[in-house]
Amino acid sequence: MSDRFQIDLPLSGYTPKHFLLSVDGPVATITLNRPERKNPLTFESYAELRDTFRALHHEEQVKTIVVTGAGGNFCSGGDVFEIIQPLLSRDMKGLLDFTQMTGDLVKAMRACPQPIIAAVDGVCVGAGAIIAMASDVRFGTEASKVAFLFTKVGLAGCDMGACGILPRIIGFGRAAELLYSGRVMRGDEGERWGFFNRLLSSDAVLSEAQAFAAELAKGPTFAHGITKKMMHMEWDMSVDQLVDAEAMAQSICMQTEDYRRAFEAFAEKKTPIFEGN
Amino acid sequence: MSDRFQIDLPLSGYTPKHFLLSVDGPVATITLNRPERKNPLTFESYAELRDTFRALHHEEQVKTIVVTGAGGNFCSGGDVFEIIQPLLSRDMKGLLDFTQMTGDLVKAMRACPQPIIAAVDGVCVGAGAIIAMASDVRFGTEASKVAFLFTKVGLAGCDMGACGILPRIIGFGRAAELLYSGRVMRGDEGERWGFFNRLLSSDAVLSEAQAFAAELAKGPTFAHGITKKMMHMEWDMSVDQLVDAEAMAQSICMQTEDYRRAFEAFAEKKTPIFEGN
Amino acid sequence: MSDRFQIDLPLSGYTPKHFLLSVDGPVATITLNRPERKNPLTFESYAELRDTFRALHHEEQVKTIVVTGAGGNFCSGGDVFEIIQPLLSRDMKGLLDFTQMTGDLVKAMRACPQPIIAAVDGVCVGAGAIIAMASDVRFGTEASKVAFLFTKVGLAGCDMGACGILPRIIGFGRAAELLYSGRVMRGDEGERWGFFNRLLSSDAVLSEAQAFAAELAKGPTFAHGITKKMMHMEWDMSVDQLVDAEAMAQSICMQTEDYRRAFEAFAEKKTPIFEGN
Repeated sequence: MSDRFQIDLPLSGYTPKHFLLSVDGPVATITLNRPERKNPLTFESYAELRDTFRALHHEEQVKTIVVTGAGGNFCSGGDVFEIIQPLLSRDMKGLLDFTQMTGDLVKAMRACPQPIIAAVDGVCVGAGAIIAMASDVRFGTEASKVAFLFTKVGLAGCDMGACGILPRIIGFGRAAELLYSGRVMRGDEGERWGFFNRLLSSDAVLSEAQAFAAELAKGPTFAHGITKKMMHMEWDMSVDQLVDAEAMAQSICMQTEDYRRAFEAFAEKKTPIFEGN
Repeated sequence: MSDRFQIDLPLSGYTPKHFLLSVDGPVATITLNRPERKNPLTFESYAELRDTFRALHHEEQVKTIVVTGAGGNFCSGGDVFEIIQPLLSRDMKGLLDFTQMTGDLVKAMRACPQPIIAAVDGVCVGAGAIIAMASDVRFGTEASKVAFLFTKVGLAGCDMGACGILPRIIGFGRAAELLYSGRVMRGDEGERWGFFNRLLSSDAVLSEAQAFAAELAKGPTFAHGITKKMMHMEWDMSVDQLVDAEAMAQSICMQTEDYRRAFEAFAEKKTPIFEGN
Repeated sequence: MSDRFQIDLPLSGYTPKHFLLSVDGPVATITLNRPERKNPLTFESYAELRDTFRALHHEEQVKTIVVTGAGGNFCSGGDVFEIIQPLLSRDMKGLLDFTQMTGDLVKAMRACPQPIIAAVDGVCVGAGAIIAMASDVRFGTEASKVAFLFTKVGLAGCDMGACGILPRIIGFGRAAELLYSGRVMRGDEGERWGFFNRLLSSDAVLSEAQAFAAELAKGPTFAHGITKKMMHMEWDMSVDQLVDAEAMAQSICMQTEDYRRAFEAFAEKKTPIFEGN
């Protein structure tokens, strides 16, 4: 796990070794790209994803992020022979190195200020389901097959935050069934339960996710980062605490030029052009 | 923000300056009432709403509260020229005064023991959406347009508790989309997602909300106040803590006369008449 | 409340006094069994349920638990003449003894490592609704009538954890309506809202719940217990805390033989046979 990827900014000049990264204006798209195996993860791709999201934290040019998979599937999770097998011979320290690294990927996704949109089609299982879950917004298809199938490989549902985060998205009862059974959540279930924000055709899911990301990238992006931060910070606050925390956070946003720009555009019956400050 | 409204009890003798207040037996109805502008809020109406809910805390006669808007809309939120513009020239202390005042409105709504029923039709945006969100129960219509549109004016979604409270009502994924995009949640979506408890016709939504409020006002009202208090207190407790807290709270309710009245009515095959003690 | 049931292990040799207990291989089924009165609870049955779930904690043979009611109903809650009436003459200590005992039933259900599946048909009200709520997974029927009707007997909705747990299953708005009004949640609502995981026919609901329980009992059962524990522990953790906690929990599971068995079966294209260690 000592793999550390030296990722220079701007990211548009960085070529990841283990997935595709394209930066189109303010929208970065990460594409898991081993389509012949439904885009599994390896030790190296986990680590590079973690480091990429950490770098994105400081990448001012990138305002929103899309995560997707190549070839009609999102991600088949940790590879059986490249991850599960080698873990069998690790000692406890080695195992914890791995689970902490995968957890750090989730933490990096939640810590970067950019909203993350997952475009999910086909297989989306194991760590793939987690990457979708750890995104902010999820677009799926009727063919999406999301499964938290850790139980199928002899493990618990508590992988990378699933026992805590999934229930807040779809409710405790539905999350419990998925985590104990490892069964597939179909696309229509995912939409009905609030996992997917929209169901689209396989042809459209990525382009619609990118269009949504481009729309959010118009800003106000500083404020979007604060929205994300506060949803994260308020997770375990009391109601009174979170109301007070938002009073401070929103008063910061009221000091931005984007707030002034919005008013001025409104007064002139124009659409505001935000600049992220 | 030094506006403080001196609100004498009983509220049935109080005439608010910035909205309508009617008290019909045990049900108070607050009606935002600038229909020609879809009932926007101003510095003064925020403050008077806050002080009214604080006064309601001690208003023994009022057992349930309905909040609605006049003229087919609920509320268009903070007025652009009466709130957004003047905030632009405030310093940080002045901004925080404002955001804390609006936050205090939510805290006052959650702290008063009476269940609050929002009757929502038409436009329900910005702080209007928050007032609906901060209510206990929401009745809407097909024409309801709820939008947490802070992002449209250059601000973050973290306004008056939205980043913490909305996800607990409709789930984190759906809340994230609404808070980042500022888009409208339609009436049917609101019902499907659990924001609205019922969808009614525009003609019926207020009267049904008042009928529901009148039904709850039959009591047991002391117990209803405890229900509200505990939903608030348990927000960030562990499961074991909240189970223990409820054991204490319910044992208090078992000391009430209403509990005895319920049993006695049952034994006589009658409907209990609760008195709120 | 000093009733304590001495429950010897294995439970397959224990005959409860106040309900039925059958152990079919790894699946224990608890059947509330006073069908002529829709299976009400009494002081004694509460206490024996609590002690049985506590004993199940240590019952290695039992891997999953089904809870149901006899005669087409789940449970009519605390009996009016056997519970509500005698409570009226208790002092505060005596009342708290009762509410803590009922709370301890919920805590015992959440603390035992076995997933609990509720098979709910017909009446499921009061403490019956709580027992369903405190289960991990719920199967219902179109005829299920779930009501948190504490308010109907002059009490608050905060009974045995309902104000904290129900909102996490169905959302705060829906939970608030049910807890204030005491109204029935119909089977179809329960499914739509995430209370019920499946709706089945009255004929099939118990057998399907037992089949699901038998499927989960195939394991990995040690990991299932960790899944349950983590869903419990993470209830009020921050996102970063829960991700870190899961890294530790999952690394424990990676030390189990079941994890190795899963890999070896996969490599041989077989179905793994888990042993719970």
